Amino acid sequence: MIIYLAADHAGFALKDKIKAMLTKQGQEVIDVTPVFKDADDYPPVAQALAKQLLRRGTRDEQRGTRGLLLCGSGVGVCIAANRHKGIRAAVGHTVEEIKLAREHNDINALCLSGRSRLNEKELLKIIDAFLKTKKSSAVRHARRVKQLG
Amino acid sequence: MIIYLAADHAGFALKDKIKAMLTKQGQEVIDVTPVFKDADDYPPVAQALAKQLLRRGTRDEQRGTRGLLLCGSGVGVCIAANRHKGIRAAVGHTVEEIKLAREHNDINALCLSGRSRLNEKELLKIIDAFLKTKKSSAVRHARRVKQLG
Repeated sequence: MIIYLAADHAGFALKDKIKAMLTKQGQEVIDVTPVFKDADDYPPVAQALAKQLLRRGTRDEQRGTRGLLLCGSGVGVCIAANRHKGIRAAVGHTVEEIKLAREHNDINALCLSGRSRLNEKELLKIIDAFLKTKKSSAVRHARRVKQLG
Repeated sequence: MIIYLAADHAGFALKDKIKAMLTKQGQEVIDVTPVFKDADDYPPVAQALAKQLLRRGTRDEQRGTRGLLLCGSGVGVCIAANRHKGIRAAVGHTVEEIKLAREHNDINALCLSGRSRLNEKELLKIIDAFLKTKKSSAVRHARRVKQLG
């Protein structure tokens, strides 16, 4: 799986931390916003990641892709990402919530708060649930995800 | 302020509870989904509420409007609502989060989990923060909200 990462100024430090942790795990990580910009805006950051996730390339399609988005609270990038059809983004607070969001809503973007009170271990568990939980095969969930566009 | 409410089957019971609590407070509440439907889908529910919030009527514009959306986790309706330009929706977990989302992201829709572990008092505090917190007057926040479309 290829994991795209993007963050505004408020999520930048945590994004770099997560990048290091995922790289250490052997994950393939592509940083969409590798250069720190002071007081940049979250909507174009989320848009840049959405474009990568929606890009249909043989390599991405074969491997599967996921996105990790960070801003101050996670809410701004989440609204911006969900403006794009094909992106299903949720802010991660707990493992249970993200497991359900993968199963029921087939989310492909996880939004995190750069000012989160969660510690490194908790964050990694949430990211792990996001990357490893399979979407439900129930017809009703697939129908609803399709309705989202 | 006019508060629009909508819920799928999984959020229906809590929606009715919130409706009663808000009505008791003297709030004007309009229930977009007043009839319980077994296993209805969250995307059209969120869409119906978004349409009400985006409707430009003299009465709504003068008074101001907000939306409350409920499904099993809050995530499904949140993705669906954010598909609509002009809607800025967030899932409410804590008062602090929703205060910030009002100040920074000017959210106009609050999404709640019908299976929430929050008690009535905690939920009311989150709803209260959603209804009463003013958006920030900072130029940078207004610029970003405008970028969301």
